[in-house]
Amino acid sequence: MASVNPPRGMRDFLPADKARRERVLAVIRERYRAHGFDEIETPVMEDYDRLHAGIGGDNEKLSFSILKRGMDAEGIRAAADDPAALADLGLRYDLTVPLARFYATNRAQLPTVFRAVQMAPVWRAERPQKGRYRQFLQCDIDIIGDATARAEAELMIASLDVLDALGLTGGSIRVNDRRVLDAMLDVFGFAPGERPGVLITIDKLDKVGPSGVVAELRGRGADAGAVDALAAYLDRPSTSPSFDEVGIRAALPDGIPDEVISHLVALGDTVAAARGADAPLVFDPFLVRGMGYYTGTIFELAHPSVDYSLGGGGRYDGMIGRFLGQQVPAVGFSIGFERIVDLLPDTDAEGERSIVLVHDRDVPLARLLAMKAQLVAEGARVRIEQRAKNMKALLERSAADGYTSFASVGTDTAADELEFKPLA
Amino acid sequence: MASVNPPRGMRDFLPADKARRERVLAVIRERYRAHGFDEIETPVMEDYDRLHAGIGGDNEKLSFSILKRGMDAEGIRAAADDPAALADLGLRYDLTVPLARFYATNRAQLPTVFRAVQMAPVWRAERPQKGRYRQFLQCDIDIIGDATARAEAELMIASLDVLDALGLTGGSIRVNDRRVLDAMLDVFGFAPGERPGVLITIDKLDKVGPSGVVAELRGRGADAGAVDALAAYLDRPSTSPSFDEVGIRAALPDGIPDEVISHLVALGDTVAAARGADAPLVFDPFLVRGMGYYTGTIFELAHPSVDYSLGGGGRYDGMIGRFLGQQVPAVGFSIGFERIVDLLPDTDAEGERSIVLVHDRDVPLARLLAMKAQLVAEGARVRIEQRAKNMKALLERSAADGYTSFASVGTDTAADELEFKPLA
Repeated sequence: MASVNPPRGMRDFLPADKARRERVLAVIRERYRAHGFDEIETPVMEDYDRLHAGIGGDNEKLSFSILKRGMDAEGIRAAADDPAALADLGLRYDLTVPLARFYATNRAQLPTVFRAVQMAPVWRAERPQKGRYRQFLQCDIDIIGDATARAEAELMIASLDVLDALGLTGGSIRVNDRRVLDAMLDVFGFAPGERPGVLITIDKLDKVGPSGVVAELRGRGADAGAVDALAAYLDRPSTSPSFDEVGIRAALPDGIPDEVISHLVALGDTVAAARGADAPLVFDPFLVRGMGYYTGTIFELAHPSVDYSLGGGGRYDGMIGRFLGQQVPAVGFSIGFERIVDLLPDTDAEGERSIVLVHDRDVPLARLLAMKAQLVAEGARVRIEQRAKNMKALLERSAADGYTSFASVGTDTAADELEFKPLA
Repeated sequence: MASVNPPRGMRDFLPADKARRERVLAVIRERYRAHGFDEIETPVMEDYDRLHAGIGGDNEKLSFSILKRGMDAEGIRAAADDPAALADLGLRYDLTVPLARFYATNRAQLPTVFRAVQMAPVWRAERPQKGRYRQFLQCDIDIIGDATARAEAELMIASLDVLDALGLTGGSIRVNDRRVLDAMLDVFGFAPGERPGVLITIDKLDKVGPSGVVAELRGRGADAGAVDALAAYLDRPSTSPSFDEVGIRAALPDGIPDEVISHLVALGDTVAAARGADAPLVFDPFLVRGMGYYTGTIFELAHPSVDYSLGGGGRYDGMIGRFLGQQVPAVGFSIGFERIVDLLPDTDAEGERSIVLVHDRDVPLARLLAMKAQLVAEGARVRIEQRAKNMKALLERSAADGYTSFASVGTDTAADELEFKPLA
């Protein structure tokens, strides 16, 4: 007999959890829709070759592959030296590769500037650990076909609105640009070939601090003069730069291209105008973000209640072109659904009237269900329970499942005689 | 480069389709919740062994298997004679096997009578054909732990309410009981061993008619006397029996156990009481339904607008016990989500104010997005489009995506000067 548990690293969602997840999804769906994002859905599988085209980074190695149907013994033996021959499809490990494929497939039926929202599971065969699952939900918004800061601004404004609508007010966004990083490393004197490695080290700044970064770079034999220049820069008194031209320029060494700075400044102005007085953007010239496909603006959503990010994204102008054979600008943001669900209190659906009818064994079924139907027609959510020996457990179970009141139905109770009492 | 299409037999859902599907799902979710069903979710994968335990019938052969991670050449070669060794997991082909596993896993945290609703995709590697897909959505409700007709009645009442709420009023349910079929075949003289085969033939009655069924049974060498008895019975004048004790008894030969008939009668009375005067149930003593795991009541949802069923279900008291090692009564119903979505008109979300802001190229971004933010805050859904050469195409695209009005934003247009015009 197979194990009675769900597969390793994957979760069942019981009623209370599932209801909370659906409530959060409904808010995200409604808010992104209001901001002009169109929800789409793609199959959970994509062609194996597409999932292993080098775009997914480390996630490609973690992908679950689908065994080809109808393999015979000879085919299997032949695949011993080429395991990829066993699979023709795989489960998606993110929503970005499927979006790029979707856009290439359906472009003729989409608006020139396409604002997509996807809320769907992805799968990664990671070593299971606390808070990390092999199936989890991603909520991505992407804007394809807009090279201006309008695109980043719309993503940020909509996502801050989602946080507000979920009761998580006070969110802010750390912003940088891959071109800022590249220009800074150039100014410091790192050769183009060593910059990707240097970025991987700089990405650890939050964890190991400036001295840790400098030590690691020296240990790896990075260009000594460049490391000294970076070290001097990291040693400058740290201030939180204002998100405007003065602040951004002050936070950077000389030699950063003007158009990169104006893109950031336009973004700040626009988010500020849409949000009212406060633009909750923070310029962080050392924000890196892992994925190799980012080409411009990169950003992470933060909230004062937690010290990890609640989502992140960036511009990836190169990727859609790889599927389409034609360059198309694109920028995306992934809100951290699983983290947000864990943050929210376990509140019930607002204003819902939910009733448990506890009936004696001999109440005629027809009368009982007519009573239920009437309450449902009046707008209530109704569960029927037969009276049990352990009524305390029954009522506690009902309260845990989100019911707020109950009524007893005896053999002679008429519908208009029901007495509703609150559940603990 | 891999194909630019989604995998064979699987679909992308574009914005209008996806929005319609989500609207239908929201209605189904809300109605079943009102009737006391608790939504749950399980991982898309289950253990390979569980999916191939003989419960899934023909669907087991159609299941997609997940290649084991980290297979080496030796392991692959060894699997040549045992392809099952290549896979440890598979994608679910229905929601019933995962529900049984879920119940076994989580029983201690569930109410004594557990009313579950699941709305989730399943996968079957069928030969693609019109209207049949390799990934499709199933919406199942199940009641576990209730052996009485209350369970069937709650499934039926809730599902008829879902149809009503979707605007598909006038639905009805064909009902039979596997024990009726078994008792009839016994009365006619079919031996227990040949009854499963006889049922497969009777299941074709709608397609081939009584003479076709009799001919096929004769051709297969079924017991001649029993086939004659069945033929005589099928030749009786056909009437649509009323769904009460008189009608049901009149539609059946003598010798059907009383408790089976009383279960059906109680069901009819209960649905009638809950629905008001009309119980839209039709007794059909030759309804079979394919799955081998049914043990009692079986039923199919019908609607006057179509000649195929919009869902079906039945009692399967034996299955949960196979996972749990302890008998638990269960009855389930699967509403035909994909068929229902196809039936519904492509209406937009009711009462939604949806606006396209068409702006000149040189409108400052900050002002444009402040305007959008204000409209969104007022409750509208807003898309921004830059003025295009082909305005007709732009406006048609917007209308197709569900937008109902638009306004032009020039360089000097203030927010209170916007003029909203209807989209075709």
